[in-house]
Amino acid sequence: MIFIFVALFFIVTPEFISSQTIEKHEIFELTLKGPSTGNPFMDVTLTAEFKFKNRILQPEGFYDGNGIYKIRFMPDETGEWTWITSSNVKELDAKSGKFICSPAQPANHGPVSVRDTFHFRYADGTPFYPVGTTCYAWVHQPEELVRQTLETLSNTTFNKIRMTVMPKNYDVYINNEPPFYPFEGSKEKGWDFSRPNPDFFRNFEEKIFELQKLGIEADVIIFHPYDFGKWNFDKMNHDQCIFYLRYLIARISAFHNVWWSMANEYDMMGKTEKEWDNLFRVIQIYDPYRHLCSIHNGMAWYNHSKPWITHLSIQTPYLQDIQDWRELYRKPVIIDECVYEGNIPNDWGNLTPEEMVNRFWISWCRGAYCTHGETYMHPQNILWWSKGGVLYGKSPERIAFLHRIMTEAPEEGVYPLHNLWNKETHLIKENEYYLFYYGNSQQAKARLFLPDKVKFNLEIIDAWNMTITPVQGEFNGLTEIPLPGLPYIAVRAIAIH
Amino acid sequence: MIFIFVALFFIVTPEFISSQTIEKHEIFELTLKGPSTGNPFMDVTLTAEFKFKNRILQPEGFYDGNGIYKIRFMPDETGEWTWITSSNVKELDAKSGKFICSPAQPANHGPVSVRDTFHFRYADGTPFYPVGTTCYAWVHQPEELVRQTLETLSNTTFNKIRMTVMPKNYDVYINNEPPFYPFEGSKEKGWDFSRPNPDFFRNFEEKIFELQKLGIEADVIIFHPYDFGKWNFDKMNHDQCIFYLRYLIARISAFHNVWWSMANEYDMMGKTEKEWDNLFRVIQIYDPYRHLCSIHNGMAWYNHSKPWITHLSIQTPYLQDIQDWRELYRKPVIIDECVYEGNIPNDWGNLTPEEMVNRFWISWCRGAYCTHGETYMHPQNILWWSKGGVLYGKSPERIAFLHRIMTEAPEEGVYPLHNLWNKETHLIKENEYYLFYYGNSQQAKARLFLPDKVKFNLEIIDAWNMTITPVQGEFNGLTEIPLPGLPYIAVRAIAIH
Repeated sequence: MIFIFVALFFIVTPEFISSQTIEKHEIFELTLKGPSTGNPFMDVTLTAEFKFKNRILQPEGFYDGNGIYKIRFMPDETGEWTWITSSNVKELDAKSGKFICSPAQPANHGPVSVRDTFHFRYADGTPFYPVGTTCYAWVHQPEELVRQTLETLSNTTFNKIRMTVMPKNYDVYINNEPPFYPFEGSKEKGWDFSRPNPDFFRNFEEKIFELQKLGIEADVIIFHPYDFGKWNFDKMNHDQCIFYLRYLIARISAFHNVWWSMANEYDMMGKTEKEWDNLFRVIQIYDPYRHLCSIHNGMAWYNHSKPWITHLSIQTPYLQDIQDWRELYRKPVIIDECVYEGNIPNDWGNLTPEEMVNRFWISWCRGAYCTHGETYMHPQNILWWSKGGVLYGKSPERIAFLHRIMTEAPEEGVYPLHNLWNKETHLIKENEYYLFYYGNSQQAKARLFLPDKVKFNLEIIDAWNMTITPVQGEFNGLTEIPLPGLPYIAVRAIAIH
Repeated sequence: MIFIFVALFFIVTPEFISSQTIEKHEIFELTLKGPSTGNPFMDVTLTAEFKFKNRILQPEGFYDGNGIYKIRFMPDETGEWTWITSSNVKELDAKSGKFICSPAQPANHGPVSVRDTFHFRYADGTPFYPVGTTCYAWVHQPEELVRQTLETLSNTTFNKIRMTVMPKNYDVYINNEPPFYPFEGSKEKGWDFSRPNPDFFRNFEEKIFELQKLGIEADVIIFHPYDFGKWNFDKMNHDQCIFYLRYLIARISAFHNVWWSMANEYDMMGKTEKEWDNLFRVIQIYDPYRHLCSIHNGMAWYNHSKPWITHLSIQTPYLQDIQDWRELYRKPVIIDECVYEGNIPNDWGNLTPEEMVNRFWISWCRGAYCTHGETYMHPQNILWWSKGGVLYGKSPERIAFLHRIMTEAPEEGVYPLHNLWNKETHLIKENEYYLFYYGNSQQAKARLFLPDKVKFNLEIIDAWNMTITPVQGEFNGLTEIPLPGLPYIAVRAIAIH
């Protein structure tokens, strides 16, 4: 529910009254001055209607400290938008104006949404093939390390990153204090969950913007259980959770690269299913843009058929059920945690790079997507998965190679064969495109069942050595070709037109 | 039901009337002369009661061609046994005699049965740790190849072999005519399923005896679907199946190394569940020794809780449900097909040797057993899995190494941890023995949760390189030790007494 109060007079910061030009999918930010006494976070309500022809979107504003209030808005239509504020404080209420939304620059594809039931695209129609990584608490590290993380990311193909809003405390690997705390107070004196710390959130959204510049989607993890009594940020009651979530939405939903990940290992947090459902409804109500929205499992399984879930965000070391999940939920599947490349003793952090790459290929060829993470032991415990820094592993460049293979597949109509028993995975578009991936087998021959009436070019793809070797000739029907007899081989058949 | 007819007069071959001495678990064979006209297989009923004190066992006899009838019996108690025949033919009826059963020689451990719910032992109490291989149609190959197979087996640790009664026709790999056919007739004229070919069965049982001399259990696959119109031995009707099964039982159940595997990929054979159940009942009725008895799945799943199933014989490429199956059925689990080491294009035949060994270790550490098979491409299509011959793979010696590890575990009370999420598998006996296996991970450190009050010796086991390296010191409680950071590593902790 949004409470709208009408006030009798108002003051507007001049720079925002005049008409401006805002690029499509960029942020129109309205800054207003208002009261700083009492608890402005709780006491002041602020929202605005943004109108394009008959279309109205209504983001909430937020208090940014020092008597400053902001409303952020991401226009998705080019042309003239008008706006008018509503507040229970007269200085903030009934302010109005307009701006022109100009076409997006070519590099600005807009927010990502679901395409073709199981896949993704940007708002401008460009397909988006997620190849994500995991760097949970990178924004909560010292600035130098943050810069190094961004530098590392800029040299990879990763286009999505899983990251937590709250700082993280986990095992021996991460327990540093963050540069900012999300609320006023201290662990000793207690936190005032009714007073968010604007510096904390400003830092967080700056990092989202840095990712946006690199073309990386921020898969924002709203709640996580990795606190273990260090700060007790996981101990908000349900109303406090809703308040925090609304504040977060007000601040960052206008960033086009935001995805909502309601929680990591949600079932470790002790909330009821009804509470989770309520929190999803809060997103439905206050996010005007319908950003992608998911929840990540520990040992329990959320009912992903609920309407607010746009795609499955799955933790599992086993990939054989992907096709079943697709058919059951009819939504995209992202294997957001399938164990990380690394060598730590924890069972979720010691994949060989070969197996990390293998899991990306299996996921793709079963009709899903996979997410990377890296956990090599480090003398200062700077593990990419939690803190960022430098990547030491061998999988990222192979994942980039797979991303190229993804972009070369037909945009529409590819689907995985479902009735396969074992590790063979086939992604196909009838009579056009066949990608046979053989996993960690060492078969020395491929036996392909191609259509009889269409001729195909064949290529042998080595997913580990990143080579694509054309096979001499044109092929149709039952076809046998020699393979290297090594693991991580695929065969790609493309119809000759 | 056993039909017993009383005849008025009889002739007994003299050598069997006199008292003999038979070693425990060896075969007492009674040979009788009788009619050879009509269809002796169908027309003549023959059985005998073997009596030790108040205990009576009643095997069926069988017609062996040329007017010869035989009854085989395996005594399981030392001392005097008496016997008396029953037949609907006077020459075979009411013959009687006795023999002395002498103690078994040390190498003769007797038949295998279930021990400690999930494991196996021989009749003399010696634990039996199955490390099986698969060589479906080796008995149906030319004699030279058969001899080579036996020679190969004699140099391995394999102590169980999956083998079919019927010859096999499958893909390009096996389609040779067998040296003998199981029934009179021919494919062209049709088979007379009421007239088994004694030469065929004599050849089959000779091979079982050869295995017995090598200490190898014969996991005899009674039905299989790999005929595909070549001979139509899979086309017997239900009564013919029962007749064939009774004949087989009469011939081979006295071999102590026989296990009954009702079928391979039973669900590919088009029989109803009721028919399968009936066939199991036939074994229950006619096998006096209660040999181990199982059924092997294709895509469907038999209800292994039925009383005739002594253990699960599972085909699966996925091993993570083993603990659930143990708890559900409370029976031993043997992963009798988990894909074979090899390099053929078929999805079930191209494991790397590393992965074959890995699956043996995972099975064992999850509380089950695994079975080997080998399918390397061969210029004459002599693949071990179907024809036997020579082993080319690298897994057999590693499986032998694991067998040694198995025999060094406590005989009683080891169990797998159940609540593990991923590839870690722990086989434990509280305060005594812990085997932690890390699968294909590359962790560079082990973190062990040992009991606080007991001191342990630790060894690092490299399952692939077959080394056991003691760790300096004595350990208890939470313990961290460096590992090589390579796949296929285990840590063994043995309490210091």
